[in-house]
Amino acid sequence: MNGQNPIFIPGPTNIPDRLRAAMNVQSSDHRAPDFKEIFLPVLADVKKIFKMSGGEVIIFPASGTGGWEASVTNTLSPGDKVLVARYGMFSHRWIDLCQRQGLDVEIIECAWGSAAPADLFAQRLAADPEGRIKAVLVTHNETATGVRSDIAGVRKAMNASDHAALLFVDCVSSLGCMDFRMDEWGVDLAVAGSQKGFMLNTGMAIVGVSDKALAAMDSARCPRCFFDFRDMLAANQKGGYPYTPPLQLIHGLRASVDMLLEEGLDAVFARHFRLAEGVRQAVAAWGLTLCAQSADLYSDTVSAIYVPEGLNSDALTDHAYHTYDVSFGVGLGEMAGKAFRIGHLGSLSDLMVLSGLAGIEMAMKDLDYPIELGSGVAAAQAYYRKTAAGNTQ
Amino acid sequence: MNGQNPIFIPGPTNIPDRLRAAMNVQSSDHRAPDFKEIFLPVLADVKKIFKMSGGEVIIFPASGTGGWEASVTNTLSPGDKVLVARYGMFSHRWIDLCQRQGLDVEIIECAWGSAAPADLFAQRLAADPEGRIKAVLVTHNETATGVRSDIAGVRKAMNASDHAALLFVDCVSSLGCMDFRMDEWGVDLAVAGSQKGFMLNTGMAIVGVSDKALAAMDSARCPRCFFDFRDMLAANQKGGYPYTPPLQLIHGLRASVDMLLEEGLDAVFARHFRLAEGVRQAVAAWGLTLCAQSADLYSDTVSAIYVPEGLNSDALTDHAYHTYDVSFGVGLGEMAGKAFRIGHLGSLSDLMVLSGLAGIEMAMKDLDYPIELGSGVAAAQAYYRKTAAGNTQ
Amino acid sequence: MNGQNPIFIPGPTNIPDRLRAAMNVQSSDHRAPDFKEIFLPVLADVKKIFKMSGGEVIIFPASGTGGWEASVTNTLSPGDKVLVARYGMFSHRWIDLCQRQGLDVEIIECAWGSAAPADLFAQRLAADPEGRIKAVLVTHNETATGVRSDIAGVRKAMNASDHAALLFVDCVSSLGCMDFRMDEWGVDLAVAGSQKGFMLNTGMAIVGVSDKALAAMDSARCPRCFFDFRDMLAANQKGGYPYTPPLQLIHGLRASVDMLLEEGLDAVFARHFRLAEGVRQAVAAWGLTLCAQSADLYSDTVSAIYVPEGLNSDALTDHAYHTYDVSFGVGLGEMAGKAFRIGHLGSLSDLMVLSGLAGIEMAMKDLDYPIELGSGVAAAQAYYRKTAAGNTQ
Amino acid sequence: MNGQNPIFIPGPTNIPDRLRAAMNVQSSDHRAPDFKEIFLPVLADVKKIFKMSGGEVIIFPASGTGGWEASVTNTLSPGDKVLVARYGMFSHRWIDLCQRQGLDVEIIECAWGSAAPADLFAQRLAADPEGRIKAVLVTHNETATGVRSDIAGVRKAMNASDHAALLFVDCVSSLGCMDFRMDEWGVDLAVAGSQKGFMLNTGMAIVGVSDKALAAMDSARCPRCFFDFRDMLAANQKGGYPYTPPLQLIHGLRASVDMLLEEGLDAVFARHFRLAEGVRQAVAAWGLTLCAQSADLYSDTVSAIYVPEGLNSDALTDHAYHTYDVSFGVGLGEMAGKAFRIGHLGSLSDLMVLSGLAGIEMAMKDLDYPIELGSGVAAAQAYYRKTAAGNTQ
Repeated sequence: MNGQNPIFIPGPTNIPDRLRAAMNVQSSDHRAPDFKEIFLPVLADVKKIFKMSGGEVIIFPASGTGGWEASVTNTLSPGDKVLVARYGMFSHRWIDLCQRQGLDVEIIECAWGSAAPADLFAQRLAADPEGRIKAVLVTHNETATGVRSDIAGVRKAMNASDHAALLFVDCVSSLGCMDFRMDEWGVDLAVAGSQKGFMLNTGMAIVGVSDKALAAMDSARCPRCFFDFRDMLAANQKGGYPYTPPLQLIHGLRASVDMLLEEGLDAVFARHFRLAEGVRQAVAAWGLTLCAQSADLYSDTVSAIYVPEGLNSDALTDHAYHTYDVSFGVGLGEMAGKAFRIGHLGSLSDLMVLSGLAGIEMAMKDLDYPIELGSGVAAAQAYYRKTAAGNTQ
Repeated sequence: MNGQNPIFIPGPTNIPDRLRAAMNVQSSDHRAPDFKEIFLPVLADVKKIFKMSGGEVIIFPASGTGGWEASVTNTLSPGDKVLVARYGMFSHRWIDLCQRQGLDVEIIECAWGSAAPADLFAQRLAADPEGRIKAVLVTHNETATGVRSDIAGVRKAMNASDHAALLFVDCVSSLGCMDFRMDEWGVDLAVAGSQKGFMLNTGMAIVGVSDKALAAMDSARCPRCFFDFRDMLAANQKGGYPYTPPLQLIHGLRASVDMLLEEGLDAVFARHFRLAEGVRQAVAAWGLTLCAQSADLYSDTVSAIYVPEGLNSDALTDHAYHTYDVSFGVGLGEMAGKAFRIGHLGSLSDLMVLSGLAGIEMAMKDLDYPIELGSGVAAAQAYYRKTAAGNTQ
Repeated sequence: MNGQNPIFIPGPTNIPDRLRAAMNVQSSDHRAPDFKEIFLPVLADVKKIFKMSGGEVIIFPASGTGGWEASVTNTLSPGDKVLVARYGMFSHRWIDLCQRQGLDVEIIECAWGSAAPADLFAQRLAADPEGRIKAVLVTHNETATGVRSDIAGVRKAMNASDHAALLFVDCVSSLGCMDFRMDEWGVDLAVAGSQKGFMLNTGMAIVGVSDKALAAMDSARCPRCFFDFRDMLAANQKGGYPYTPPLQLIHGLRASVDMLLEEGLDAVFARHFRLAEGVRQAVAAWGLTLCAQSADLYSDTVSAIYVPEGLNSDALTDHAYHTYDVSFGVGLGEMAGKAFRIGHLGSLSDLMVLSGLAGIEMAMKDLDYPIELGSGVAAAQAYYRKTAAGNTQ
Repeated sequence: MNGQNPIFIPGPTNIPDRLRAAMNVQSSDHRAPDFKEIFLPVLADVKKIFKMSGGEVIIFPASGTGGWEASVTNTLSPGDKVLVARYGMFSHRWIDLCQRQGLDVEIIECAWGSAAPADLFAQRLAADPEGRIKAVLVTHNETATGVRSDIAGVRKAMNASDHAALLFVDCVSSLGCMDFRMDEWGVDLAVAGSQKGFMLNTGMAIVGVSDKALAAMDSARCPRCFFDFRDMLAANQKGGYPYTPPLQLIHGLRASVDMLLEEGLDAVFARHFRLAEGVRQAVAAWGLTLCAQSADLYSDTVSAIYVPEGLNSDALTDHAYHTYDVSFGVGLGEMAGKAFRIGHLGSLSDLMVLSGLAGIEMAMKDLDYPIELGSGVAAAQAYYRKTAAGNTQ
């Protein structure tokens, strides 16, 4: 790879120059006053991205997986029951993590391509009057299938049975890209990462924790140390960190949050929708099908696209990579070989997306897909023209 | 501009990350030994790019215009006659510069879109048995019209009349992109710049000077100081510089020359041809016409494209800029309003070019150009597929 | 802080420009072949830094604390006994971590300023013929006190009683600075971090794991997921990563290991010793005392220095920071208020160290320390002159 | 050189990270509207640094030498008389340039180490009632000798004889470091460069031109093109540039001017004075002598220091470079071998200066200079302590 082309994987994203510059800072002393002066306001401003008012934002030097681990080890105890639906690779992995932490995971198996089943959650919760279920875990955006779940609907289901379980949401590949409302949706703990909507290097698990989730902290008996909320909160309160902080990433986060807030979250979401919709128009023009089962589930950060029967999606992404120097997401888990994914999150423009569509078209044509060169591009162009800001032509 | 999209102006080019990193160095002492250790080998290696063996490479902290000035003030005296053809904005400007330096410029007026007229040069030189013409000046690649001239042909014409005039060539927008052969073509002085084929920041005029041109140095009476070859050569010989050198650019040049030589000049030229040809396929698919009068004149670094009668090319480039955040070259001089230009030189990939084609298509459609969305993209895709390295599909 | 002055904390270190450039890379696809091409050779080359031949190097996106956690959770089970000596803040924290992971920690309390007590280890191990002690944990360089322990001596003590316990070593603040010999010293697991001898951003726990330690992996019952060796090794084997890898840091590690190996590890160690010895000469000239109890314990990466009775070391580091814009390490734990620390590891030169000594001298003088301005600097200068490479004057 | 140590040459300076980041930008279209939006305000703000209200700021992609050339070729005609005093290498070079441009240079020879002789200027001007002297040229800060001239005094001398000559000032190594007052001192044209007080890469000649100097533009008959004010002003007026502009440097200049104005020019000057005074205290402690003849002439950007009789200053700077990896200015011209120079301009801190003093002390000691290690450092420390901002200790 020459690094000339954008990447079209669903994270890490293409990093804007402003953020590369922000992360390219020399070491400084994390015990000196200026660390605090940058760190504490960042924590406060990340709350705006989560749309949370109370609670705490906690940042670990880790990947999103570390955030999942922190979420359950800080609030639950071995043997505790959690309720999760499995409808893709990332919900699957969170389930696996819970099981390895000794939790009792009640799994609702769903078709890949479907979303979190609010109705089934409602049934299971209603069937648990003793409150044995301590937490409901939901993957907001299932990166493997390009499906966005209705978190507000899950909360409604929980409220319907007046269940006290905590609501934990993986918003790693949605936060800062699609609407997310911690407070309004009653989310108790949300896990995000630096390398998706924040457009930064991988290396921070960014966790929003409600006051209710924080209240569970002291009784939680899962062993933990690196990911212990208590050490982190105690240190943060004094403007410090319990171990060496990821300084450069924190500087990057400052700039990233500034970028998101300068643009305005609504504009950020509208931009993601618009770019995603162009991709979907291209998929339709190609005569291909999205993994997401219905339009209300479409993710605005990633589209998983079935390849025609008899073709292997891995051959397609491999060919695109080797011949056109461009990366798309492979099919994961059940989708392996059957679907490829176009990531369209973070720092992207109309032209960047069009270049990706043009690239995958060439690769598809090379591999005898029944598509017409330029057709997907044209469909996306038509949509982008129509919806271009200030385009009065 | 967000800086997300490539630029499609015919220089400065998109700077590869490797070169940005190479130029991002801290100050060091230009009188210390390590300056010499980087600088002298760079001068030697730039000769490989010019394809010159003898003579000297001289680097001024200036733009290409400074290189033009250096070329004539170091070899000629006020009142000296030079022969130049005017067939575009850049040949025009060099003429203007010569006139302001007090030279007697014999101008051959040619249609914009045509190339250096070897036959007319031959006639004028034949008509100058006394050798009053001291130099013939040729713009290798006329950036305003996208026309490449046949330098070997000009040399042949000069040789035909056995004329002793020096041959000066502006290869600012061709060197490192299209074949250039200083020695073989008998070029006496060639002017290049850092911001085109070298893919660097603007700031260096890079001049290849043959031994024959160097021999003219001492008798040349044009006043000069900043651009004096003699000071530069005297200092360079000792590994120094007559004033403060552009250190960061010299580091960049080291890396740039490495990149070009690692890829191999033939591969570099083939890459430029291939990308350019894709653009030309798109232009044909749109039903538009290149300014260059015939296929043998096509530049591989820039295509100047006439817009349909009655339309204004400035409105097109403006619209593309404001609506799609992408820059194309405007029409210059005679071409103002009549043509726009797509720069396709330096660090570009298939996908980057396709994104530019997709962008200008949208802009053309917005402005009611009679083109079909995706048509130019498809034509270029077809060509790129067919010619992709290692594409056995 | 203006970021003009070096920092003199014992990590993170001053990052050389070469490494900043190496880490400043755009995102790429971690599932594409080129990830593997960079990642696997890095893992192999890090073994040379650990001086290990078999086993595996494992890299987590975390801080050193995460490495400690990984070391015990992947090899031990709740209730397992480990033997540790506490002689500073970092040995203390590792003990705390073990306790929170449910291990039975047998603690040998030692004076801060002393080193790992090989003789006491020998006694305890001899008193454990049933082999209830599963692991001995040693902090190679105690960053809080500036004490280096004799790991070979600990191994000798273990061998003396023919004890089967694993030997785990925290070499976070020593690897790549002071000699470390995984194989020769019989270290079973060693924990390092990116921000010390590797001179990179914080964000990687770098763990060397012997075959013997790997053998303990399957029977270890501590819950783990993010830090699970098994997932990591399975993914690494295929050139992949179990979750999103810290790409930019891996690129940095490539360059860091290159720098260390180009210089040669012996030269790296000698350089650290020489710079450290200059600091120690200054300390002696000031009439101050190191926390380290004897010369054989002196750390070459950090010097912890007692302030005179009645003075507060925090006031000193605060004053240096606010008045002279320079950071030194504060006293930690038992040393709080009593000692300050000068970090002298990573990318430092004679002049950089001298600037730190000059800075702290001014601060000491401001606070009425009984020292003479320039005295410590002069002592260090004398030593640096005498030992400067190639100084024949 | 490892690039770890600051450089102590009198320019280029150590570039602060903020400016390196500002210059590290991707290419963009210089004919697009956003170029204008950055460029025009920069031109306006540079006026504040020159302390000029009317006139124009003109920026060439060149070094300071190019600025000298532009100053005379745009305002004078061949044969015009200019009056200059020679008291160092840089005044000498400007004289040489004038002669090569065909000017009639009336030279006042002065001792190196003295300043511009206002009284002698007065005499010469008084002796020129016909006004044959068209311009008086003064080097504000003679970098070779560390001498600052009294520009206000020269203006007074000119006014005394009511002479109409223009006053041109080379403030390359003083602007942005020592007070400079274009308007108040009646300077008609001032030449600066990017790599001194602006702390940027070399590559811009920055020229302040008064309305009176601009009025001379049309009658000036020196040939010029690259450096022609007229092309530049015509293009600038429309927000453009007559050729490809040095985009990255312009971005850097934006940030540089911001830094200077944020700190406040008076604070910038006071900072330079304070750091310089510390160096002078060290020189006195060493028992060495400055080239500058008297205290009122001391430059705050560079100190030229005589080495003891019988010693060779080049051997000293060479030794410092090879043994301690640190660069100082060599003696130039008459000072070659007799003096070395410490540059103390731009981005420097107390500690950085002290590191330079410590380094040169070691080198002097190695070469048997009769100095005591630490003595100069101690003298500077004493001064810096006493004058440290907010140091109430």
